[in-house]
Amino acid sequence: MSTLISDLEYRAYRLRLHALKATTKAGSGHITSALSAADIIAVLFFHVMKFDLTKPDDPSSDRFILSKGHAVPIVYAAYRELGVVSEEELYTYRQFDSVLEGHPTPRFEYIDVATGSLGMGLSIGAGMALEAVRTDYDEPYTYVLMGDSEVAEGSIWEAAQIASYYKLNRLIGIIDVNRLGQSTPTMAQYDFKDYEAKWSAFGWHVITVNGHSIVELLDAFSKAHHVKHKPVMIVAKTVKGYGIASIEGQEGYHGKAFKTEELDNRIAELRQRFSKAASIKKEEPPTQKRPQKKERKAPTLKPVQLPFGSGESIATRKAFGIALVEYGKQVENLFSLDGEVKNSTFAELFEAAFPERFVQCFIAEQNMISMGVGFVARGAIPFCSTFGAFFARAFDQVRMAAIGRAPLRLVGSHAGVSIGEDGPSQMALEDIALMRTLPSSVVLYPCDAVSTFKLVGAMIEYVDGISYLRTTRGATPVIYDAREEFPIGGCKVIRQSTHDVAVVVAAGITVYEALKAHEELQKDDISIAVIDCYSIKPLDSKTIRALATKSKGYVVTVEDHYIAGGLGEAVGFSLRNDDLHISSLAVDKLPRSGTSAELLAFEGIDADAIVAAVKRDISSNITRIRRKKIMSTALE
Amino acid sequence: MSTLISDLEYRAYRLRLHALKATTKAGSGHITSALSAADIIAVLFFHVMKFDLTKPDDPSSDRFILSKGHAVPIVYAAYRELGVVSEEELYTYRQFDSVLEGHPTPRFEYIDVATGSLGMGLSIGAGMALEAVRTDYDEPYTYVLMGDSEVAEGSIWEAAQIASYYKLNRLIGIIDVNRLGQSTPTMAQYDFKDYEAKWSAFGWHVITVNGHSIVELLDAFSKAHHVKHKPVMIVAKTVKGYGIASIEGQEGYHGKAFKTEELDNRIAELRQRFSKAASIKKEEPPTQKRPQKKERKAPTLKPVQLPFGSGESIATRKAFGIALVEYGKQVENLFSLDGEVKNSTFAELFEAAFPERFVQCFIAEQNMISMGVGFVARGAIPFCSTFGAFFARAFDQVRMAAIGRAPLRLVGSHAGVSIGEDGPSQMALEDIALMRTLPSSVVLYPCDAVSTFKLVGAMIEYVDGISYLRTTRGATPVIYDAREEFPIGGCKVIRQSTHDVAVVVAAGITVYEALKAHEELQKDDISIAVIDCYSIKPLDSKTIRALATKSKGYVVTVEDHYIAGGLGEAVGFSLRNDDLHISSLAVDKLPRSGTSAELLAFEGIDADAIVAAVKRDISSNITRIRRKKIMSTALE
Repeated sequence: MSTLISDLEYRAYRLRLHALKATTKAGSGHITSALSAADIIAVLFFHVMKFDLTKPDDPSSDRFILSKGHAVPIVYAAYRELGVVSEEELYTYRQFDSVLEGHPTPRFEYIDVATGSLGMGLSIGAGMALEAVRTDYDEPYTYVLMGDSEVAEGSIWEAAQIASYYKLNRLIGIIDVNRLGQSTPTMAQYDFKDYEAKWSAFGWHVITVNGHSIVELLDAFSKAHHVKHKPVMIVAKTVKGYGIASIEGQEGYHGKAFKTEELDNRIAELRQRFSKAASIKKEEPPTQKRPQKKERKAPTLKPVQLPFGSGESIATRKAFGIALVEYGKQVENLFSLDGEVKNSTFAELFEAAFPERFVQCFIAEQNMISMGVGFVARGAIPFCSTFGAFFARAFDQVRMAAIGRAPLRLVGSHAGVSIGEDGPSQMALEDIALMRTLPSSVVLYPCDAVSTFKLVGAMIEYVDGISYLRTTRGATPVIYDAREEFPIGGCKVIRQSTHDVAVVVAAGITVYEALKAHEELQKDDISIAVIDCYSIKPLDSKTIRALATKSKGYVVTVEDHYIAGGLGEAVGFSLRNDDLHISSLAVDKLPRSGTSAELLAFEGIDADAIVAAVKRDISSNITRIRRKKIMSTALE
Repeated sequence: MSTLISDLEYRAYRLRLHALKATTKAGSGHITSALSAADIIAVLFFHVMKFDLTKPDDPSSDRFILSKGHAVPIVYAAYRELGVVSEEELYTYRQFDSVLEGHPTPRFEYIDVATGSLGMGLSIGAGMALEAVRTDYDEPYTYVLMGDSEVAEGSIWEAAQIASYYKLNRLIGIIDVNRLGQSTPTMAQYDFKDYEAKWSAFGWHVITVNGHSIVELLDAFSKAHHVKHKPVMIVAKTVKGYGIASIEGQEGYHGKAFKTEELDNRIAELRQRFSKAASIKKEEPPTQKRPQKKERKAPTLKPVQLPFGSGESIATRKAFGIALVEYGKQVENLFSLDGEVKNSTFAELFEAAFPERFVQCFIAEQNMISMGVGFVARGAIPFCSTFGAFFARAFDQVRMAAIGRAPLRLVGSHAGVSIGEDGPSQMALEDIALMRTLPSSVVLYPCDAVSTFKLVGAMIEYVDGISYLRTTRGATPVIYDAREEFPIGGCKVIRQSTHDVAVVVAAGITVYEALKAHEELQKDDISIAVIDCYSIKPLDSKTIRALATKSKGYVVTVEDHYIAGGLGEAVGFSLRNDDLHISSLAVDKLPRSGTSAELLAFEGIDADAIVAAVKRDISSNITRIRRKKIMSTALE
């Protein structure tokens, strides 16, 4: 035992030294937050956790999440000490070409998820722990290290209650209570009764320890491993900057690296504090090569018989539920996470078919998204569903998932004003804008059951980033043949003729308004083409451009969403340099309660509005001639 | 006492009757959620709360927030019973022309804030209660009625801890524990020990009562009024659908109105359950006219001497802090709410000057925003500040503030990749897209200290919706004279000549890149115009269009933000039908750690990229001629 303790004290000293040097070299970084966590990390990485450096993805291995992402130098230090990061590489911390970023991202092979926006780690850990239970890998532990400032984030308490609800006893949290936030002491400071009361009340087994005592930490983890039916929270009393006496526990040192000229003195302080550990001489760890990250492989789906056909009317939200069940039959690691609206999103169909792969996340969207990230990190394919409006509640979590390149599948129901009487609080009107803005995201908005069904399959196969499916509340007629294909990035030309005078680009509910407008205009002998733009990102601008050019150059976009960041801007921006005239109909007034038809009319996105826009545009006699822009002229 | 009790029982019965009729008439609405809350509402509205129907805005009046917004029929019923809603108007519930929306909005004169996205009411209430304390209106009480499902939302626990931290003993929450969520029982169901443990641990005085006993409710509120230094949570055991025996406490009745043909039977059930109350005959309340809502008046600012001048370099985030202090001197009800990053946002300057008007909200952005809504609802002018990236954490709260037409002022620092080494988790890259999508929002992104200072003033004067100011981490030179004006919706032409071959539209940090590009291109005898597009929404497309037309029709936009929903799309969309060529430079690769210069180069948004884009565009010899689009041709 005493050898173990002295070894771990040695490791903790070495981690501090590595972190100190790395941050000083970088000229920035959160050294004081790293120092308070050094002993915890040493105990975890050099004794408690079971993992294989050659197989970071092994589902039987324990997992670690650094929720207080800014303290990452101490984790890089651990991998340095384990031999998979060389001293040279450690000093690339925060440099452009380094995978050792300022906050952890999966660009570094041993990081599963991106952190840095605080308060998400415990939810991610809960997702990992639950996935392990649900897939019979119930042996591994998931460890989550949090800061004490981030415990103010509500998402932490969402995770707290869900972990306790699902009795995740192999989820072990550690709070590094160093008392100081970025700019001020935390609310609870060193009030450990407060921590104990809160976490106990939330159903956790709480162990309070001195976070700088290797002995107490070892004891705490040992006790934690014997707890049944409850998650465990280790509340560790620490000191910010611990090890460098001159700044220990002082305000004003958050996120500040030491100056190069100070380094020798700081190292001397470390040696003085940890004289015993510092006197130990061990050989440098041999540098090991890191295994390459496995490419995320998309499952290949077998064709599925669609359980509906033309003539039927089915809400796309219901088609999503049906599709999830059908694909769930062949994709074993498909999960459904729902935010207590399963009877609205139709995730309830999946629950009925595969109860063990359905996770009720209750009304806690932030936790649902981060749990989804945890499921993804262990290789599962979760679909997170709620009202489209409520992804706004968890958009920081979605943003962080995108930074971690997690292929999270999101499904938002109750799109737009078409939901009617419930009013604006329940209407998804910003969701397309939110999801489009993320790198590598895919935004899908099908109008009928067939396209919805096919696109759910496309989402399963899409592994390069976030994919989002927007579904509609009301039933809509099936307009596509079951054999039709709907690739991501495509669109469908559903009406066209040789004498079209405009093309209407619609999606979801407005496709039916466009079809009505088409009929209406026919009565006046006006022909228009209609595009079902089911893939809003990527956008099939090539097809839209080609059809618009054939249709006298007039384009009308129409969407049940606010204009900024929506379909209209996407199309307008994409075709801005083309010789076209583009009118965009979108929600531009704050909506209210009313019938679906009243609201579509109020916002000017119904068939009448389309008819009026087409008539107005084509009668506008636009006769401008694009100036010749010739290099020689431009530079004259 | 017994007269009081029988009167309140009568009121509760009447409220149930009104709500039942209103929802049945509407054909939709959450009647069962309304019924569980009827006794609580009766006791609050007809005995406990002090308010004046003729003066809804009176700062001395108690306030009520219906956090479980879907139960609003029971609140409309209360106003019906108070005489300010006629029977006829009550039956317009959920109709297009009615102010009695499906979820509460301030279109109805007695509603202060929009609710309907769950879990926000307690934060709003905490904001109201704290505002009352800080402005010496410490007499009024703030009551918040929550559902038990929404207690799963983390934002509730953010509010719980902040209310206890600030010892808001005049904040009284009530949880309507009817055991059933939308689609499944709640996590805690009727486990009142769980409720007591959690709320006590969070520092609240907890009172558990039978929520259908008028006597117990009266007693609870009376006790609540005697609690010192702590907020109070009344946990009320209720039954969903209480009063209609045939469906009481049953699953499957959430959000479902009864059919018209059932109404008589349902009324009969009500009468049977409350036979004593139903037998009381009182006169219908005389219908009173509601007072008109006061227009929100913007303060008129006196000119301020700017404490910096040209030649200096000051980060715009610091200029924000300086401006807030200066305006704080003349605007008495200006407040600063900060998310524990006051030394990054420079809200710390305001704290130092006006500690009593600074509110430390810790790392709990959702609660900060909703507290801000509470401050606004009591007439104050709060500026909520954090990293721009972290408004993503509270975007549902911002969305709901927009639905409630609350003029919330938001300031996000650390915009874009230019922050450098901290990496993508800390970079605001979606914030412009998020804020632009909201109705009536204003999005400002100044490049220097003068414009920042002036725009903070413009935000104080803007009362029609959300305003958002995006600030930059690094210091930038002051380029404007202190006398320059910066109206919302304007832009500044900062370089132009008679022989410009393109116009570069930049904002914030990229303005300086554009200026460098301007210099660089001059060396090759290429002149460009440069616009500082400090107001991204509204956009001054008129000026951009005019200058672009004078500049050979070439436009290059450049921004430190993702392309979708950002400056490029705003400009491109707005000028899509003009005879121009628009190139857009924006962040399009997932960024990482690195220096600011490396990252601006990596994303192709630095001076070199601008130079290259201009040279490429003007040498592209675009010679297309816009087709003549003539009505007669179109319809031939």
